[in-house]
Amino acid sequence: MTRWQPNARGRLRQAALELYGEHGFDETTVAQIAERADLTERTFYRHFSDKREVVFSGEVHRVLVSTIADAPASMTPIEAITEALLAAGAVLDERRDMTRLRQAVIAANPPLRQREQTKYAAIAEDLAEALRGRGVEPSSARLAAEAGVAVFRTAFDRWIAGDEQRDFGQLVRDTLDKLAAVISG
Amino acid sequence: MTRWQPNARGRLRQAALELYGEHGFDETTVAQIAERADLTERTFYRHFSDKREVVFSGEVHRVLVSTIADAPASMTPIEAITEALLAAGAVLDERRDMTRLRQAVIAANPPLRQREQTKYAAIAEDLAEALRGRGVEPSSARLAAEAGVAVFRTAFDRWIAGDEQRDFGQLVRDTLDKLAAVISG
Repeated sequence: MTRWQPNARGRLRQAALELYGEHGFDETTVAQIAERADLTERTFYRHFSDKREVVFSGEVHRVLVSTIADAPASMTPIEAITEALLAAGAVLDERRDMTRLRQAVIAANPPLRQREQTKYAAIAEDLAEALRGRGVEPSSARLAAEAGVAVFRTAFDRWIAGDEQRDFGQLVRDTLDKLAAVISG
Repeated sequence: MTRWQPNARGRLRQAALELYGEHGFDETTVAQIAERADLTERTFYRHFSDKREVVFSGEVHRVLVSTIADAPASMTPIEAITEALLAAGAVLDERRDMTRLRQAVIAANPPLRQREQTKYAAIAEDLAEALRGRGVEPSSARLAAEAGVAVFRTAFDRWIAGDEQRDFGQLVRDTLDKLAAVISG
């Protein structure tokens, strides 16, 4: 007997992040997550392959890469990167509180912090590949991709700070201006 | 009875990297390294804490950070970063063949590749801290540091390519120009 389960994925994510924050990532079981979300373990595994995938769903990664790939051919690399950062920002702005909870979980767990570094490196590689796919010369593609990730991370850290009210897009534009000022010396 | 051992550290590094390349990092023992260098295991451990430290000695890391810290106060962040990259380049140019050997060892071993990512993240953090120590505002310090690491890595990959003849400093200047062109759109 399957009941209709509105927003099961969102409820599971919320329950998981709360439990990771309260008891620690390692100490939390999928059974506990399902119980708090009032769903079954089987439903959990329909949405996530494991506990860690709740933290690293890859959604922002996919939005960044697909936006570069789909950007108009007339856009320069930095224009395409900017579009991608703004598109990711639109996703993030809808879940600011949950992202703050998520980031506290990562900060408290060294293997998750390590995983986060690896994810950022993978994002930079995929952005560079997407730019090369637009015909951008490899060194420039890589520099634009690395600059994009640096801007993302800097804007992100400002955006999740408890007293920051500006949305992600505003912080991206401000951070891009800072980067341009730094590079021009 | 202690014999005089000219350039023991360099001989141990050369022997270790050769063996890592021939047999694999995991398969090589310190006894084998000492034997090939015609030195003792005890001498090895006077120079390196373990097999991995031969690959990640931290010398370039230290040169980068200390150059920023010692740069004249009048230098802008990107000028200080440029000085640091050129100073690291002077170290690297003296050991280009050994660095090519080292990079092949890293490429062949996933845990070493992971370690390399972690080291680059640590370098970026330390460069940002050194810039903040010069009074640079935190977001700008971080962006300059991340840009510096991106330029380093891009120049480095070009520099170790088999057919590349230009020295590290020339590639750094060329890569900085590319980054400026990318950022200005």
